[in-house]
Amino acid sequence: MEIKKVFLNQSDMPRQWYNIAADMSTPMQPPLHPGTGQPIGPDDLAPIFPMNLIEQEVSTQRWIDIPDEVLNILAIWRPSPLTRAYNLEKYLGTPAKIYFKDESVSPSGSHKPNTAVAQAYYNKVFGIKRIATETGAGQWGSSLAMATQLFGLELKVYMVRVSFEQKPYRKILMRTWGAECVASPSQDTNFGRKMLAKYPDTPGSLGIAISEAIEDTVTSKDTRYALGSVLNHVMLHQTIIGLEAQKQFEYLGTYPDIVIGCVGGGSNFAGVSFPFIRDKIYGKNVRIIGVEPSACPTLTKGTFLYDFGDTAATTPLLPMHTLGHNFIPKPFHAGGLRYHGMAPLVSQLLLDNLIEPQAYSQVKTYEAGLAFARSEGIVPAPETNHAIAAVFHEALKCKEEGVAKTILFNLSGHGIMDLTGYDSYLDNKLVDYEMPAEEIAEALKELESYPKPKV
Amino acid sequence: MEIKKVFLNQSDMPRQWYNIAADMSTPMQPPLHPGTGQPIGPDDLAPIFPMNLIEQEVSTQRWIDIPDEVLNILAIWRPSPLTRAYNLEKYLGTPAKIYFKDESVSPSGSHKPNTAVAQAYYNKVFGIKRIATETGAGQWGSSLAMATQLFGLELKVYMVRVSFEQKPYRKILMRTWGAECVASPSQDTNFGRKMLAKYPDTPGSLGIAISEAIEDTVTSKDTRYALGSVLNHVMLHQTIIGLEAQKQFEYLGTYPDIVIGCVGGGSNFAGVSFPFIRDKIYGKNVRIIGVEPSACPTLTKGTFLYDFGDTAATTPLLPMHTLGHNFIPKPFHAGGLRYHGMAPLVSQLLLDNLIEPQAYSQVKTYEAGLAFARSEGIVPAPETNHAIAAVFHEALKCKEEGVAKTILFNLSGHGIMDLTGYDSYLDNKLVDYEMPAEEIAEALKELESYPKPKV
Repeated sequence: MEIKKVFLNQSDMPRQWYNIAADMSTPMQPPLHPGTGQPIGPDDLAPIFPMNLIEQEVSTQRWIDIPDEVLNILAIWRPSPLTRAYNLEKYLGTPAKIYFKDESVSPSGSHKPNTAVAQAYYNKVFGIKRIATETGAGQWGSSLAMATQLFGLELKVYMVRVSFEQKPYRKILMRTWGAECVASPSQDTNFGRKMLAKYPDTPGSLGIAISEAIEDTVTSKDTRYALGSVLNHVMLHQTIIGLEAQKQFEYLGTYPDIVIGCVGGGSNFAGVSFPFIRDKIYGKNVRIIGVEPSACPTLTKGTFLYDFGDTAATTPLLPMHTLGHNFIPKPFHAGGLRYHGMAPLVSQLLLDNLIEPQAYSQVKTYEAGLAFARSEGIVPAPETNHAIAAVFHEALKCKEEGVAKTILFNLSGHGIMDLTGYDSYLDNKLVDYEMPAEEIAEALKELESYPKPKV
Repeated sequence: MEIKKVFLNQSDMPRQWYNIAADMSTPMQPPLHPGTGQPIGPDDLAPIFPMNLIEQEVSTQRWIDIPDEVLNILAIWRPSPLTRAYNLEKYLGTPAKIYFKDESVSPSGSHKPNTAVAQAYYNKVFGIKRIATETGAGQWGSSLAMATQLFGLELKVYMVRVSFEQKPYRKILMRTWGAECVASPSQDTNFGRKMLAKYPDTPGSLGIAISEAIEDTVTSKDTRYALGSVLNHVMLHQTIIGLEAQKQFEYLGTYPDIVIGCVGGGSNFAGVSFPFIRDKIYGKNVRIIGVEPSACPTLTKGTFLYDFGDTAATTPLLPMHTLGHNFIPKPFHAGGLRYHGMAPLVSQLLLDNLIEPQAYSQVKTYEAGLAFARSEGIVPAPETNHAIAAVFHEALKCKEEGVAKTILFNLSGHGIMDLTGYDSYLDNKLVDYEMPAEEIAEALKELESYPKPKV
C-alpha cells in the first residue's frame, strides 16, 4: 500500500506561529492615517482592534506562542493531513511528486478558521463581547461565526447583498453558529442607509460592507472589528499550515522543490509558504509561487503603493501591490480572490524576490480543478483551482524536462458549497475574464497620485 | 493541552472487514424470490450484482481482506479521526466522556463512500463498465459518482424528482464527478415513462427510482446495480469505521460503555457498531443503541417479516423489521432515515437482544444537533442529529446518576449541504412528525399477510 497521507499526532502540533517580519531584510513600512497621511501607531488602531492583536500586528518577534485555548479549538480539525496526489500524477503522466496540504477538513471547509479562532480568542481575553465583520462569498463570515460561538462572543456579519441573496446556505450556516447576518448595505448603519437611499437596488460591495462593519464597531459597546486576510496578524495565524507541512515532510524524509498557493488577500498563501520562505532566506533552494486570477492581477500587473484596504477609503493606507481601491474585478467565481490589493507582507516578499507570481484565467483553473476532483476525489474551491492550475503548469514542465520535482500546494478549501462554476464549465458556458491592457494602464495611471512607500 | 483527537497512521488502517454473520447465533435466512416466494441463491442475483459482491453478500467468513486498490482510495480521507467532545460534555454538565468517530471528512461529507469505493472496485474487477443506481437526497448518488469516477466506470443516477429540483448542488456534485443524473421518474425507462404518463406531476419516490435503476441494469450492456445500504455486503464495507475506532480506543487505553449510531437502512450504524457487537457476543459489557426517527419507527414499532426493498415490489423479499413497503414516511429532513425497512443483519441483532433501539422526534434531534454545532464546531447532518439526541439522553442520565460512562457515537456526516432544517428550527417552524398509533396499527395489520421468517 502506498503512503497516501501523513497525519501528525495532536502532540506534534506546532506550539508557536512563525512571524516572517523577523526574517525580512527590508523592514515593513508603517500604515498611514487615512486623513493625515502620517504614519500611525498601535494607539490609532485601538478603537478597531483589541491591543493584543495590534501587538501581534506590529511585532517583529520570530516565534509567537499559540495559546492552549486556541490549540484546543484548532484540534477539532488540526493537524490537517498532507496528502500525496498519486492519481493526479498518473493523470498528468508527470514524474513530479505532488503533495497537498488539506485545509478543506475544517468545519467551514477552508483555512479561514485558523485565524478566526485566534482572533476570537484574543478579543475574548481582551474583554470584548461582540465582533463586527463583513463577508463577501461567506467563507470568512461563517468561519468567524463558528469561532465567536465557541468562545461565547456575539457576531454581526455584513454580507454583500448579491451573495446574501445568491448563497442562502452560507447565511444559514452563520445563523446555525449563532451569528446575526444582514445584507449590506443594510438599514443598521448610517452609511448603509445612505447607500440604500441613493442606490436602492445596489448589489452591494465588499467596500460598502467593510465601511458598515467599521461604523458598527466604533459606535457599539465592547465591539471590535475582525478581518480575514491582508493584515500581518492574519498571516501569522495561518503559518500553522506550513509549519505542520514541514513536520510532515520531515516524517517523509523529503522536502518540496516548489510551494504553491492561490493569492487573494494573501492569507492561505502566507500560511503554507512563509515557513518555507524562512528556509529559503537561510539558503534552502525552494521556489515559492503565488497564483492569482488574470482578471485581478494584483501581483503580476499591479504597483507597490500606499492604498486603502476598502473601496470607501476609510481604512489606514497600507503599503501593498494594488490595482487601486476603485478597481472592481469582473464577476468570476473565485470570490475570495476578487480583491484589489495584497497583504503588505506578501507584497514586500515579491519586492525582495522571494516569491514568484503567476496568473491564470478562469477556464484554465476550472479545467485543472475538475481534473483534480476526478482523480483525487476532493472537489476544490474555485480559489484553490488557481493553485492547481499552477501545479499543472509546473508538473507538465517536469514531464517535458524529465525531472521528478516535489511540489506542495495548499488545498485552501473544498468547493461543495460553491459548485455553480463547475456546472458552467461543464456546459462550456464559463466566461474567461481577462483584464485588458488599456484597463490596466488606466488603473495604473490613477495610481500615480498615491503615496509611494520607500523601496 | 487536552487530547482532543486520535488519528491513526495510514499503516494502522484495518486490512480486513469484519463480517458479523460469522458470529451470529441465529443463521441469516435467505432472501425470497419476489415472484415465487422461494429462497433464492447467488445465481438469481447475478443479473443485478457482480458475482464477487454476491459472494460477500452470502459469506459467513469472519474476516474479508480489503483489496489494496480499495485501501488506496479510502486513504484519501481515512483513517477518520476519533474526537473527544469536551465542549459538549461541558455544555451538558455531564461526567460522561463523549467521543465521536468523524465520517464527515470524506469528500462527499458522509460514510457512504466507504462502500461506494468497494462496490465500484468489485464491479470494475468483474468487468462491469457501467453502474445504475438511485438516490434520494443525493448522499449515496454523489458518493458513488466519486467512486465510479476514480475507477473509470460510468454511472447513471436516478434521483427522486423532488430532491432533484430542491437540491441542485447534489446534482452538480454528481456531474462534477462525471455521473449522469436524471430526475426520476424519467423518460429513460419504460417504468419511468409509464409513471410520467399516469402522474405527470409526481414528485417521485425512492421506490420508483429503484425500479428505474433496476430496469436500466437488466436492459443495458455490462451494467450492474448498486445499493447504498440494507444489504449484507454494504454493512461489511462500513465496518472499517468501528474497526478503526477500536484501535483508537486501544491507543487511548479505554473502551466505550455505549456505542450509538443513527439507523435508516442500517449502514452507518452497522459500520460503527458491529465490531463492538462482536466483543459483546464474546462477553464484553457494552450497550449498542440504534437511533431512528419516531416518524419512521422501523425498529421500535415495526415487525420482523419478509418484505420488499422497494415500493414497486420488484426486489427479492428480505427478512427484516419493516413498516411495510407501502409506508410513506412524512417529509422530515433526515432523508437518509426515511426508509420503511431495515438491514436484515441489524434486524436479526435486535431479535438476538444485542442492540437497543431508540426513537426521537425531529425537533429533539435538531435541538441536539444545534447544541453540538455550537459547542464542537462541526454542523452535523440531519440524520446524525438522531444519534446526538440519544447521546444527550444517555449523557444526561450519567449526570443524574453521577457516573462517568464513555460514550462513542458515529458522526455519519456533516450537514453543510442540508442546512434548511436548521433554519426552520431557529425560526421555530420545524414540524414534529410522530407516527400516530392508529397509523402504526394499520401498517401492522397490512403486514399480517406477509411471509414470516422462522424465528
